[in-house]
Formats: sequence, structure tokens, C-alpha cells
Amino acid sequence: MMTQPTAFETRLEDNAAKLVALLEELLSDGPLADEIQRPPRLMAAMRHGVLNGGKRLRPFLVIESAALFSGNPQAALRIGAALECVHCYSLVHDDLPAMDDDDVRRGKPTVHIAFDEATAILAGDSLLTLAFDIVAAPETDLSDRQKTELVLCLARAAGIGGMAGGQMFDLAAEQQAPDEQGIVTLQAMKTGALIRFACEAGAIVAGATADDRARLRLFGEKIGLAFQLADDLLDLTADPETMGKATGKDAARGKGTLPALHGQAWTEAKLTALIAEAANILGVYGDRAEILLETARFIANRRH
Amino acid sequence: MMTQPTAFETRLEDNAAKLVALLEELLSDGPLADEIQRPPRLMAAMRHGVLNGGKRLRPFLVIESAALFSGNPQAALRIGAALECVHCYSLVHDDLPAMDDDDVRRGKPTVHIAFDEATAILAGDSLLTLAFDIVAAPETDLSDRQKTELVLCLARAAGIGGMAGGQMFDLAAEQQAPDEQGIVTLQAMKTGALIRFACEAGAIVAGATADDRARLRLFGEKIGLAFQLADDLLDLTADPETMGKATGKDAARGKGTLPALHGQAWTEAKLTALIAEAANILGVYGDRAEILLETARFIANRRH
Repeated sequence: MMTQPTAFETRLEDNAAKLVALLEELLSDGPLADEIQRPPRLMAAMRHGVLNGGKRLRPFLVIESAALFSGNPQAALRIGAALECVHCYSLVHDDLPAMDDDDVRRGKPTVHIAFDEATAILAGDSLLTLAFDIVAAPETDLSDRQKTELVLCLARAAGIGGMAGGQMFDLAAEQQAPDEQGIVTLQAMKTGALIRFACEAGAIVAGATADDRARLRLFGEKIGLAFQLADDLLDLTADPETMGKATGKDAARGKGTLPALHGQAWTEAKLTALIAEAANILGVYGDRAEILLETARFIANRRH
Repeated sequence: MMTQPTAFETRLEDNAAKLVALLEELLSDGPLADEIQRPPRLMAAMRHGVLNGGKRLRPFLVIESAALFSGNPQAALRIGAALECVHCYSLVHDDLPAMDDDDVRRGKPTVHIAFDEATAILAGDSLLTLAFDIVAAPETDLSDRQKTELVLCLARAAGIGGMAGGQMFDLAAEQQAPDEQGIVTLQAMKTGALIRFACEAGAIVAGATADDRARLRLFGEKIGLAFQLADDLLDLTADPETMGKATGKDAARGKGTLPALHGQAWTEAKLTALIAEAANILGVYGDRAEILLETARFIANRRH
């Protein structure tokens, strides 16, 4: 049954289209100033890794968080593109045989399958590097202060104490299942840190006050947790056809998740509570925060 | 026969000791602000990859280039540490089985041997990310303008159009030997870009004029080329009985090098010419540039 997209879905898709157009541009031009040459095969692998049909939720959060404070939408889009490069680099590396060893992502061969392992490693490395390039580039219409803050925030969200560290804990979890606090920490790092960054980055792009920035950061933490709970719930309950990938995979590897520990009813109640908390955090902005709250509900309720 | 270290060697070692102390500090503290937790095993792998007894030539170039213009030595040391993190990340990833497949580096097991492949991938990723963290961190006493320029310069030197792209060309060279121009481009990217960055970064740290910055950049290009020629010459002449033939490890893999193409005499003449060019570029600074020129000679003449 086909259904009409909601206004929210249309907005999400419109932003994703703009983001993809920018990523296409960033991964076709070149060599840029200070670059010597761009190897076509490496560029193709980066494009394969990043132009993958994703929903582009993280960039959407940057854009809508910036919009809440009337931030420059073009600058927000560029920071969203940088963030998406970091997200996609992590997918390319996580899919490697030495890591999660996945051959398929979104119905397409993963980068090391479509190309080869060495190229996938370098494509991930280059996407991560490109992210910082995009933030600092003259085309990103922000002050040097904003760029410096964004570089630092992004590096902390992605590095040893954030996403990469979370992946390290995740690998360790295959050997020894973490306790509940361990699961919470792992997920706050592995998926939470970048989602938190997305929301905080929007506030930085818009030059929002420290209070506003702290609120968006906290909002990002809540929806980051909701994102992971919804993901793990899907993994626990959905059938492979809906998901487009092997389900039950994380659980089969012996990794604990909160839905696996507490069950579906607990998880759904927790998701409802997280949406309420998110709404409470943004309550001060009234109707202006409606899109962000709809994003929170979308994240918590998504079924694919 | 033991020989006394020269004044230059002592200076190089003193700076290396300062750099190692800073890297030790950067890879022991934590979690920092915005970080959630640092997985001990990942930190240990990063330390293994970076605290490897290297000569720290690249940071030395940052420090001495900054000193030429009376730049803040502490800030230069921090930018040197960031650069060393990028250099060492590239070694960790290049050593992986899918890349150059090396088990030993400087007499110690490589990171994927001492730990495992997944950890080595994540350690490299985290070192690269940490580099940008260090540049942007509040502890780095530079203006936001300088930090933004350094982030952009470093990203361009390390990414698709620089070091990572050079490694991609290097992998392709195993399948099909590049022509002479191809070798020059490959090496300008793979090893040249970071050495060029080292010299230019010193000028940025010191807030030097555009002319000074351009001079240091050009100096960096010359010694980057000298570095690679000396390296390839060493590789070529490692076995005297077969000198002049393609016998070294790179050549055995079918990779062309300029010394392999043109022979030892040509290479030595080229190295002498490069030192003369480097001296000419820095001539305007008179005796103040003596340390940098001694570094150029050291790079061109090193025999280990």
C-alpha cells in the first residue's frame, strides 16, 4: 500500500536531496587548492560509501537545530555534510572483514566488496579527513571561532572517547557481554555521540547562547538513546525483509542490548519517556521546536 | 665505534623527547571534556603506534620553522604532536594485512600484530581524529584563524589529494608500474605532503607573512622530495652486490622509484641539487635558517 509522505517526510527528503547534491559536489571537484591529485578509484570508493541512499538524519538534525536559532542554512548544510562523512567513514570501516564483516549495506555491496579492503580502509580514512576539511574550508560561511569549536566538538564525538571508542567497546562486547551500565556507555559513545554532536553543532552554527547550546546538546543525548533503543528493538522484533539486512545479528553475536535485556514493553515505555523528556527540554522554544520534536518521534517510532 | 652526537643531533633528540612527553600526556589523560570514556585497550594500541622511537623529523620541522619566525614554541610542539599523530596513523594503517602487510616496524611488532586488526584500524582512526582535536583544543595557544588554517592545511595534506591519495596510487603501482611523472606525483602525495605541511605549519604557527609562508612551503616541497629519494636510495643500495638493480622491497613488489630508474650517481647529484635549492629558498633569512638547512642535509644524507 502506497501512502502519501507526511510534511515531515517531505522535509526530510528535501534536505537529504540538498545534502546529496553537496556531497556529490565535494566528491567530484578537485584537486582543490593544496591538493595534488585525487585518485579516481579512491574517489569512487568514497562516493560509494557516502552516496548510499541513507535518510541523512544526522545532517537533518544539524540543519533543523540551526534553523531553530535562525542559523545560516548553507553553513548548516555544510556542517551536516561533514558529519555525514564521519558517519559514513565509520560504516565503511565497521563493515570491514576484521570488524563486523558485512558484505551488504542498504542492499548494495559494501565498499570493501565493491572495491577491495585496502581501498575501503583508505576511503574511510579520506572521508574522516574530508570532514575536517569541510568544516575549516573557506566555503563554510562561519567565523573561525565557530569552526574551531565545531572541529573540537566533532573530533571528541568521533574519536577515542566517542564513536571510535564505542566501536572498540562493541568489539569487546562480542567476547564478554557488558552489564547494563556498560551497554549504556557503549551506545552513548558508538551512536549517541554523533547524534548529540548533530544537535549541538546546529546551535554552534547559529551562534546560539551557551544555555541554548546546552539544551540542544541534552536533547541530542535523549534522541541518541532513543535512536539506539529503536534500532535494537527493530533488530529484536523485525523480519529481515522489512530491515533489508540480517536481523537478530547483534543478539546472535552475544551482544547485549537494552531491549534484549528488558523486553519490548519496557523499551516502548522508555521510548515514550524519552520523547517526553526531549519535549520538555525544548519546551522553552514553544512551536518553533516542532520539527525537532517530530524528528524525535520519527526516530523513536521508525520501523525500518 | 661510538661517536659523539653532533649539536644538531642533540637538538633533534631534545625536541623528540619533548614531543614524546607531550604525546604521553595526550594519550594518558582522559576522558576529556565532551569525551565519555576511553577504552584502555584502544589507548594502549594508539600509544603503541605513536610511541615507537621515531626520530620525530616532522614535528622537528614544525618547531624549527616556527622558531625561524619566533613563533610560540609550545604551540609549535602541539602542532608537531598533531602532525605526528597523522604520520603514525598512516603507518598503522599502511602496515595492515590488506595494505603493505608488515609485521615489524622499528624492531617491534606492528599494531595489528601486537593487538589485532580491528584494534589497529580503530587506533589509526582515533589517532587521525586526535590530530584535529589537538589543533583545535583550547590548550593550543593560537588564534582561531591560525587553528582554522592549520586544520584545513593538515586535512588537505593528509586526505584524498595528499597522503591517503598517495597511498592509493602506491597500491595501484604494485599492479602497474607508474611512469616517471607518476612516481613523482605519488611521492609528492604519499610522503611529500606531510613534510611540506610541517614547514608551512611552522610559518602559520608564527603568524608569518604570506611570502614567508610560501617560502617555507617551497622549502618543504624540496626536502620532502629529498626525503623520498634518500629513502629509495637506501632501499636500492641495501644489498651492495646487486646495486643498480631493482632489489629492495619496494622494487621487488614492482614499484618504480627514481633511484631505481636513474641509478645511484643521478640520485646523489639530485640530492645535492635539492639541498642547494633549499638553501637558496631560505637564503633571505641568512644564518637564522641554519638549523633548517642542517635538517635538509640530514634528510638527504641519512644512511639509516
